[in-house]
Amino acid sequence: MNIHGIPTRTIRPLAGHGGVEIIDQTVLPHRLAFRTLRTLDDAAEAISVMRVRGAPLIGATAAYGIALALAEEASEGRLASACARLLGTRPTAVNLRWALERMQNRLAPLPAAQRCEAAWTEAAALCDEDVVLNQSIGRHGMELIKWHYEQSPRTVNVMTHCNAGWLATVDWGTALAPVYTAFDAGVAVHVWVSETRPRNQGAALTAWELAQHGVPHTVVADNAAGHLMQHGQVDLVIVGADRAASNGDVANKIGTYLKALAARDNGVPFYVAVPGPTIDWRLADGSGIPIEERAASEVTHIQGEAEAGGVMSVRLTPAQSAAANPAFDVTPARLITGLITERGVCSATHEGLTQRYPEAGANARRTA
Amino acid sequence: MNIHGIPTRTIRPLAGHGGVEIIDQTVLPHRLAFRTLRTLDDAAEAISVMRVRGAPLIGATAAYGIALALAEEASEGRLASACARLLGTRPTAVNLRWALERMQNRLAPLPAAQRCEAAWTEAAALCDEDVVLNQSIGRHGMELIKWHYEQSPRTVNVMTHCNAGWLATVDWGTALAPVYTAFDAGVAVHVWVSETRPRNQGAALTAWELAQHGVPHTVVADNAAGHLMQHGQVDLVIVGADRAASNGDVANKIGTYLKALAARDNGVPFYVAVPGPTIDWRLADGSGIPIEERAASEVTHIQGEAEAGGVMSVRLTPAQSAAANPAFDVTPARLITGLITERGVCSATHEGLTQRYPEAGANARRTA
Repeated sequence: MNIHGIPTRTIRPLAGHGGVEIIDQTVLPHRLAFRTLRTLDDAAEAISVMRVRGAPLIGATAAYGIALALAEEASEGRLASACARLLGTRPTAVNLRWALERMQNRLAPLPAAQRCEAAWTEAAALCDEDVVLNQSIGRHGMELIKWHYEQSPRTVNVMTHCNAGWLATVDWGTALAPVYTAFDAGVAVHVWVSETRPRNQGAALTAWELAQHGVPHTVVADNAAGHLMQHGQVDLVIVGADRAASNGDVANKIGTYLKALAARDNGVPFYVAVPGPTIDWRLADGSGIPIEERAASEVTHIQGEAEAGGVMSVRLTPAQSAAANPAFDVTPARLITGLITERGVCSATHEGLTQRYPEAGANARRTA
Repeated sequence: MNIHGIPTRTIRPLAGHGGVEIIDQTVLPHRLAFRTLRTLDDAAEAISVMRVRGAPLIGATAAYGIALALAEEASEGRLASACARLLGTRPTAVNLRWALERMQNRLAPLPAAQRCEAAWTEAAALCDEDVVLNQSIGRHGMELIKWHYEQSPRTVNVMTHCNAGWLATVDWGTALAPVYTAFDAGVAVHVWVSETRPRNQGAALTAWELAQHGVPHTVVADNAAGHLMQHGQVDLVIVGADRAASNGDVANKIGTYLKALAARDNGVPFYVAVPGPTIDWRLADGSGIPIEERAASEVTHIQGEAEAGGVMSVRLTPAQSAAANPAFDVTPARLITGLITERGVCSATHEGLTQRYPEAGANARRTA
């Protein structure tokens, strides 16, 4: 999508394969800073401190992390250890495991001398495919937005949570791809951006990228979601996912479950954008999804821009108060109106998913 | 309750009636600053910028605001204009109207020469009664906490939202009175403090006052409430109220409704502490409660303590992004397990409330 009107991806290999350039998302929306990852350590650090985040972009960065690792040494042992290192950076998004297994399956059988070059090629292919998947999610999801517009030709109000926009992917986004596609097609759309404490990916990233693309939006506290739905100000909710189980349960950023409950209570359709690589066919339901517990400091402190201009962190809580920080929650499939996949919209059920992915669904675990 | 071990009220008249001392709650938890209100303007400003907040304390401050106003001039016109001025400071908490009507009914019939002294007396009586009401809520609510402890003798986990502790009242609090009463009685209790964006009264005020009193607690993002309930980490929810309608619908800080939905979905009891002055018998249901829309800057900016020590505000959102800030939401009675009043726990229904308040209920409006 556009930054200052220039089409930009969130991650790109440098010419000559000396590194990978990312947008450092820890300083948005206050600074637009690009950063070059040159080693496996750089890639692992970027994922764990969330310079890059969002399930698809975590997967893409891990794929390039393998390429960076193999530039130093391309043995099978190095490949395995690099995969293990990257897999340990964050537990919840299954795209990480998916990308690493893809890289390993592609590279392990090759002679060592070919591995590094093949890793760059495979990582680039994975990124290109991510863009295509998201564009397809955008087309399918746009129909849902258009449906509302056709029922009543006024601005369609979409609520989202966290950032599942182009900053969470290589380009286009998952949950926001339908919004961008609709906006570009001339459908009047407005986005309620919930700020998404504790890391405020909504207020910092979703608001920023929507502003860059010119999409009308309003930031609200996460707490406001139910009130807006009670008062008919939300036509549909679209969120992303870090991992979907094969029955349609979905792990996404903490607070997603509360929005799903409010949507159900107010008859608001609740959709989850789920590209194929986000589906964990090994899990019968969401109870097996590991939920990352992040540092308490993300709750006790917050980063923002001082009036004088610097980006700084301030403490919000009394020094003697403990804090807990579960980073994701699981929304049960029963609360989900539909999953928007690159192959179309389906019900959040094992049947719905296996109709879209018969090749994967046949081997999936099912709830007894 | 205690500050540094010393029993303290949130508001107290100065000797000689030269002013009223409050705790300036806008700089907690980073600074404990007392502030003297000397005029009607001071009182109105303190309420509208939330140096004092919480429905009962708003009422108490307004009562003293009348006393301050009458010290300048004690005519009937001055009484009426001071009431009108204070009534306009904040729309949602009905205790404000209740306190002002009480002052007007008490003072208007008196000769002007007696009004000022009577105003100080009446405001003090109102404050003393608030303490008694809250102690009674504490005793009734403690039984609910004790019940959980007796079922399974381990720490009882109470979740609350915003600040309905002693800082929201003259002393003891509404929702936290049962917690303090149970804690003082030796019941093992732990409080999940949701930070309560945008103004973070949970992280700033509830955490601070619980820490001062030594009650174990953990601050979490508002988004974490559903996840904690899904995982059996919340035994009961107790929140306060800014206004209850006569059918048991309750307006409270934005986000309360989301917690009520999560409690219902997970079989967690959801109680609202409601002292008599918070019940609006004129409203048949919650749809008539005015919801305050506060400044967008409360969402786009946040205040905290810099590492260097100063309390400062930082911007969270892109400069070009709009923000909306509804300050309250309405939780429908159907989601409320019970109301904890100073007269005992009752169902969140017209019948439940009129059994407790037969003198008021007889004249209340009812839903057709």
